[in-house]
Amino acid sequence: MKKFINDPADVVAQALRGLAAAHPELRVDTEEQYIVRADAPRAGKVGLVLSLIRISDGGFVGPGMLDAACPGEVFTSPVPDQILAATKAVDGGAGVVHIVKNYTGDVMNFQLAAELAADEGISVETVLVDDDVAVEDSTWTAGRRGTGATLLVEKITGARAEEGGKLGEIAALGREVNAASGSFAYALTAGTTPAAGRPGFDLPADEIEAGVGIHGEPGRRREKLRPAKDLVHSALDAILDAKSFTGPVIVLVNGLGGTPLIELYLIYGEVAAYLGERGVSIARQLVGNYVTSLDMAGMSLTLCQATDEMIRLWDAPVRTPGLRWGA
Amino acid sequence: MKKFINDPADVVAQALRGLAAAHPELRVDTEEQYIVRADAPRAGKVGLVLSLIRISDGGFVGPGMLDAACPGEVFTSPVPDQILAATKAVDGGAGVVHIVKNYTGDVMNFQLAAELAADEGISVETVLVDDDVAVEDSTWTAGRRGTGATLLVEKITGARAEEGGKLGEIAALGREVNAASGSFAYALTAGTTPAAGRPGFDLPADEIEAGVGIHGEPGRRREKLRPAKDLVHSALDAILDAKSFTGPVIVLVNGLGGTPLIELYLIYGEVAAYLGERGVSIARQLVGNYVTSLDMAGMSLTLCQATDEMIRLWDAPVRTPGLRWGA
Repeated sequence: MKKFINDPADVVAQALRGLAAAHPELRVDTEEQYIVRADAPRAGKVGLVLSLIRISDGGFVGPGMLDAACPGEVFTSPVPDQILAATKAVDGGAGVVHIVKNYTGDVMNFQLAAELAADEGISVETVLVDDDVAVEDSTWTAGRRGTGATLLVEKITGARAEEGGKLGEIAALGREVNAASGSFAYALTAGTTPAAGRPGFDLPADEIEAGVGIHGEPGRRREKLRPAKDLVHSALDAILDAKSFTGPVIVLVNGLGGTPLIELYLIYGEVAAYLGERGVSIARQLVGNYVTSLDMAGMSLTLCQATDEMIRLWDAPVRTPGLRWGA
Repeated sequence: MKKFINDPADVVAQALRGLAAAHPELRVDTEEQYIVRADAPRAGKVGLVLSLIRISDGGFVGPGMLDAACPGEVFTSPVPDQILAATKAVDGGAGVVHIVKNYTGDVMNFQLAAELAADEGISVETVLVDDDVAVEDSTWTAGRRGTGATLLVEKITGARAEEGGKLGEIAALGREVNAASGSFAYALTAGTTPAAGRPGFDLPADEIEAGVGIHGEPGRRREKLRPAKDLVHSALDAILDAKSFTGPVIVLVNGLGGTPLIELYLIYGEVAAYLGERGVSIARQLVGNYVTSLDMAGMSLTLCQATDEMIRLWDAPVRTPGLRWGA
């Protein structure tokens, strides 16, 4: 295993130390293991909490997006006490929304945390993200997995919470964004978790994994490597078969951690061309490594059939380490 | 070779197509092969032009940073005609600064382009970036190579140009930033150019390349893989031996394309701790994949001993695909 780490057992804690040092606008509670905006809790503002199974998710904490994120160990859910602590840290009296990717551990632990929070008088609503059209059930999931659409749910609900939206409204908006989204991913290589020390699965030199998830689990099938254009067409066909989008859509071309921008931009060129052919108009687009799976070379495509209100909220100011505009 | 591409011979052009589609605030001249701000030329503003040997550099074109970038083929200099076309496209009558990383091809072609521009009545100043302390001469260089400090030169001179700085002043400022900067890089793996189809050099499973460049060339020595903390100490020692910084410094922890954020943040934690031990104060920091070498797993550290004026310009608004704040 070749990684810039010190001790495989201590990677997350040490990365959090660096995140805290690099971003004084965030507060990292290293004991309870969560990341919050330094100005949390804000009175009267609905708080947004995300499970964080990748350090890059911590980069979406800040004005206009998340209030807190709870890192588990790599590819492992945070524990209920940790989620409860983050929930209490961001509750400003208006309640808290948990944004939960549909993975069994996350779902269970967030549910327990929500019950514990309710016992302490905090209203919690849960938005479950399950946008991955590749598989119905998977290694770690009952039902579809939550992947790239998580970023859209965070951005759009985060903007509305910043404006003063109420708890029920924000939860409903998050569910609406999730229902309007579909994703599909390809891996060229598997990621290597520090604890395992070797890739999560083996891929021959000429094969790729189609419909891969973001926790090291395998996808829906092995395929021969094909030109990017073909892969884009297959992925978009899968999304458009599952969800009958006509546009306008918000497009996310997302690298899984080890894919350089030159490839992601090439992919976006193919996405724009093919959506044009399919008669799907593009309202907004984002290209980069955002919802990642360690050092996996791979990419995911996410489309969200966006209402005018979603586009307005997408455009609203955001100021986080990972996403920043208009502020 | 596993990449999301269509044809190894046509990767740059296709990536530029995607960049243009994703960023309508840029204008990509696909015939002359350059990228400019859509509002170029701006009357009275000094233009800043960069050679672009990586598509990610194109992400630094926009208000507060570059006016144009000229992509060559992968790891190849742009040609003089192309640089001339970009120079003319951004000249608003106040002259143009060429920011040139110290690589033989770039230096030669930019010099020719500057002479051609002078023939057409455009004043050009050149800022040569040679911040890499790892090697005195290298495969592609006489003298030190230009690496991570390029981003600092672009950001700081770009901010001053946006404010209305004059040609000579901006060129002097760029040279000052370069002289105040030092960098050192490690590679865990080599990048693979699409044309070659295989990694630029071979590295055994337990070895790394120290003092690596960003064009696929080897570094100054092979080493056994060591803990991140040791690598950070060695790199910072090399920079601090070459340049006697006491701070305040601007720190760039830069991934070379295939390194995930969890590792880069862990590295930043070590950098902050060790600079503290060495008595070097940190004024500003940036962590991410910015100055890249395709899919190379690796990282570079850059320190810039910053004046108050440099820090003020670093903080100034910037709005580009790759770097954005305050605007």
